Amino acid sequence: MSLFVDRRNLDFMLYDVGGLETLLTTERYSDYDRATITEIFNTAEAIAGEKYFPCAAKLDANEPEFDGELVHIIPEVSEAISAYRDAGFFGAGFDADVGGLQLPLTVTNAVASIFMGANLPLSNYHFLTIGAANMLAEFGNDAQKDSYLGPMLEGRWFGTMCLSEPQAGSSLSDITTKAEPTEDGHYLISGNKMWISGGEQEISDNIVHMVLAKIPGGPPGVKGISLFIVPKYRVNEDGSLGEKNNVALAGLNHKMGQRGTTNTLLNFGENGECHGYLIGEEHKGLFYMFHMMNEARIGVGLGATMSGLGGYLYSRQYATERLQGRHPQDKTPTSPQVPIIEHTDVKRMLLAQKAYVEGALGLILYCSGLIDQQQTAESKDDYAEAGLLLDILTPIAKSWPSEFCLEANKFAIQILGGYGYTREFPVERHYRDNRLNLIHEGAHAIHGIDLLGRKVSMLDGKALDILKARILEEVDAAGAVAELQPWADSLKSYLDEALSATEKVLACGDLNLRFANATLYLDALGHIVLAWMWLRQARAAEAALSSGGDQTEAFYKGKLSACRYFFNYELPRVTHWLNIVGGLDTTCLDVGADEFYCE
Amino acid sequence: MSLFVDRRNLDFMLYDVGGLETLLTTERYSDYDRATITEIFNTAEAIAGEKYFPCAAKLDANEPEFDGELVHIIPEVSEAISAYRDAGFFGAGFDADVGGLQLPLTVTNAVASIFMGANLPLSNYHFLTIGAANMLAEFGNDAQKDSYLGPMLEGRWFGTMCLSEPQAGSSLSDITTKAEPTEDGHYLISGNKMWISGGEQEISDNIVHMVLAKIPGGPPGVKGISLFIVPKYRVNEDGSLGEKNNVALAGLNHKMGQRGTTNTLLNFGENGECHGYLIGEEHKGLFYMFHMMNEARIGVGLGATMSGLGGYLYSRQYATERLQGRHPQDKTPTSPQVPIIEHTDVKRMLLAQKAYVEGALGLILYCSGLIDQQQTAESKDDYAEAGLLLDILTPIAKSWPSEFCLEANKFAIQILGGYGYTREFPVERHYRDNRLNLIHEGAHAIHGIDLLGRKVSMLDGKALDILKARILEEVDAAGAVAELQPWADSLKSYLDEALSATEKVLACGDLNLRFANATLYLDALGHIVLAWMWLRQARAAEAALSSGGDQTEAFYKGKLSACRYFFNYELPRVTHWLNIVGGLDTTCLDVGADEFYCE
Repeated sequence: MSLFVDRRNLDFMLYDVGGLETLLTTERYSDYDRATITEIFNTAEAIAGEKYFPCAAKLDANEPEFDGELVHIIPEVSEAISAYRDAGFFGAGFDADVGGLQLPLTVTNAVASIFMGANLPLSNYHFLTIGAANMLAEFGNDAQKDSYLGPMLEGRWFGTMCLSEPQAGSSLSDITTKAEPTEDGHYLISGNKMWISGGEQEISDNIVHMVLAKIPGGPPGVKGISLFIVPKYRVNEDGSLGEKNNVALAGLNHKMGQRGTTNTLLNFGENGECHGYLIGEEHKGLFYMFHMMNEARIGVGLGATMSGLGGYLYSRQYATERLQGRHPQDKTPTSPQVPIIEHTDVKRMLLAQKAYVEGALGLILYCSGLIDQQQTAESKDDYAEAGLLLDILTPIAKSWPSEFCLEANKFAIQILGGYGYTREFPVERHYRDNRLNLIHEGAHAIHGIDLLGRKVSMLDGKALDILKARILEEVDAAGAVAELQPWADSLKSYLDEALSATEKVLACGDLNLRFANATLYLDALGHIVLAWMWLRQARAAEAALSSGGDQTEAFYKGKLSACRYFFNYELPRVTHWLNIVGGLDTTCLDVGADEFYCE
Repeated sequence: MSLFVDRRNLDFMLYDVGGLETLLTTERYSDYDRATITEIFNTAEAIAGEKYFPCAAKLDANEPEFDGELVHIIPEVSEAISAYRDAGFFGAGFDADVGGLQLPLTVTNAVASIFMGANLPLSNYHFLTIGAANMLAEFGNDAQKDSYLGPMLEGRWFGTMCLSEPQAGSSLSDITTKAEPTEDGHYLISGNKMWISGGEQEISDNIVHMVLAKIPGGPPGVKGISLFIVPKYRVNEDGSLGEKNNVALAGLNHKMGQRGTTNTLLNFGENGECHGYLIGEEHKGLFYMFHMMNEARIGVGLGATMSGLGGYLYSRQYATERLQGRHPQDKTPTSPQVPIIEHTDVKRMLLAQKAYVEGALGLILYCSGLIDQQQTAESKDDYAEAGLLLDILTPIAKSWPSEFCLEANKFAIQILGGYGYTREFPVERHYRDNRLNLIHEGAHAIHGIDLLGRKVSMLDGKALDILKARILEEVDAAGAVAELQPWADSLKSYLDEALSATEKVLACGDLNLRFANATLYLDALGHIVLAWMWLRQARAAEAALSSGGDQTEAFYKGKLSACRYFFNYELPRVTHWLNIVGGLDTTCLDVGADEFYCE
């Protein structure tokens, strides 16, 4: 069985739960049907299996090196990306009129998941390129699109996102990279950018950096940030590459995991003119960036999910094959040892992984589906509703998998025991890779503040109202199925708790106190959303069990067991978190810095 | 400030909470007083600071290598251990009549904590040697002690524990290493041992392996296991080293963390006679091993605690120095940025680390104190009571720090953000190092089964009764202090919940079901024990605040804040765990292996 993708589960999620076939009947996606989508997945799985998966351990053990001139990466990376490029995957999600395949995001994220599962650090190179190309396609002018978009969708040029600086990580307001206008229309960029993934490499012919910078004289803070295209090599009018643009690699960061993705400190304009090209209007850079951020954040959640899946698939195979110990009631030392999957605590750790990983995948595909719904919306209201729901779900889609699929990786190591702690087995690598996801694309706490400080209250709470309505729709639908009714009731009751805690905390005028437990609020609402996702899966499984489905009975029973695990072992944690949030607990707010006595 | 030990906290724990001065008045420890102990700590801190701490990152980045002949370790390791040896620390805890310093375990564990905090993988070499020497001192015969104990206490020969085999990790019952008696009195050892820390190195002149093996014809299972001394070099009658004893290094394991400690697969007797010397009686090996296991397990808990402390100390310093962002109510982008320790969520992550790490240290020192109480007990009853309390606390002392100080390391990384994820900063190393502790010296689940299956019910629940009585003593004492009374009440209430859940689960005759949620039981009872430990610290802090103490007011207030954090944010989790345990939830028991569909 594959150790990086679970095709049966993917089919179940897309068709039985997600209703992809209905989406494929819309005009926008009318070129595709289930058979063609299956072919696309087959191609992705074949390439990932041949080119991505086999070099994952080698890439981790041989991270990119900078010799002062060039960055060296093992050759398998370039070969893998060539195969990905040749299959046309760079442009899979883009409109046909710019040369893309115009596939739904649900499908392109399913494809991305296959490559992420096989080799996350390697797939980051295309993930970032697609993100940057997305931004260009949406906000670039025609000339910019003519110059840059084609080579990016062909996978000849890669892209990066340059936000953070050494002195400004979570606080973008304080970036200092400067963009000075010139009479020739371009800007001169100067400053340093930190944590730039893919910031330097020799795999692609050019690198297109999307850079946040401040134009002198603009407003202070985030309102003075503009967005620029800054290529590694300047581009001539005929599309050929010109001279170097003075983007210098100051150094590679050496990370705990995701080692195969170069991570860089870049100096812009230190040794000569560095040209930048303004995207859209001045001072609106953060708006553009965040407009595209939803997709990037869903992508981070997906990467976290696939790291989790890699550990789950490996540890369930190991648990089936490894013989160790006996059942508690068997006191005969000469009786044969059992596969460890028969030990209840191993089953607990497998169920936990399954509940986290398959639940998270459900959420990511649901969020992807909302963007597809926007693309095919028949009214402005439908468009707006899908957008608002996506807005409120995005902090959860990014953060929840990052937190709980990391926990899944911890269990995968535990199931392998001492072997899991060695680098001869992949589970510790997934654990190291996954630890990044709580940090990048907005640290965990930032998403709590985003959720509680903006998303739940915006437009008089409209996004929260939509979320509530959707969850209650599922509660009604599942409540009509006898086997699921107790879970439906339970979800409704926890949702009521969450709404009540939300009211209490939003009524607090002291912003410091209001946000004091925002991270716990994020975890709590996340668990409620995931319970909703599990109820959707359970309902689809029940329907298949009674009316027939493509999978085995054990498959559907496994879905019900994982749902049961989530409702019994995970969801009740919400009460504790919400007591703290709704009770406006001041423990963390009150403690003085001197009490940690770092004087 | 030191980044590997918190001397002020150590003093508070030993004297204000632990009452070490009273212990030092007993005859056994009458050579020592607070001043001499302080000098010992000063020496340890100086050596650890000069020799252990500076090479920790280098040792991690340059793990031991085997060239087919010899194992090469960076020279700093040997130099560091020389300094440790010269200070007499190998024999610190041993009786004066065998050449030791006869210090209380509370003190030697405090000393060990300093070296573990500075460089855990390096300190493993002496930790293991002391453990093996302990076993020899307790159960070896005079000739064995004459031959081996002296060189070990002088730190010239190191020791190992050889339990696991490739096919038998958690299930010692299934080991197959053989020990065949000879007419010369020694046994011929043959078999493979896996995960042997310190199993090969060139630092010490000899290595004394303590090996579990089966004598042919003995009873099956654990009742047929015997314990042998198996030296790397045989020892001549005059104490000089003889020929090699055919213990061959089959390979080094390459771990995620704790890389500086060689971890080995050893072949015994593959290429010639390998002599083993029986300790005590045949077939009693596991009894001897487990008799000494309490100390080893407390040591693992201490190592986990010190990995946690390393992350806490580093991240609190970073949080004080790093400027980033503003308070929520400050909307002026030009106002100066604040140290991140002023952000409530950063304070939450520091409080969590403090609560986990200082709570765990309290438990480890308390358990060490129980062994000291045994050493100085005036009656058999006192001796037995301390022993039973230690028995029931040991699974928690090993497991709780391993679980929650790893969580502390996760928070330390988060506070440093992107920097925390790089190998330029130590917090990711602590996280990697610490992940081992849930696995070795008994995997997490094994301790849950040990606690629920043996410790709480042995001698008609006498150990649990003693634990309950000790906790209620603290509840009474703290309840008499107005500020602490709500916490005292809360602890009593959760203890009642735990006792009630214990009754319910022990009444279940189906062993499979009884143990189905043993891991959650371990976590729940662990949290209750830790709340007790925090109440002890809070009471000592309150006393110092009202009557004066050696530390600043902020120090004591910090103790109360961490206690408040533990009671508000951590202890309430117990209810959820106990609902599952007491409710005999069958979710994990019921799920079939086929539902994970690995067919």
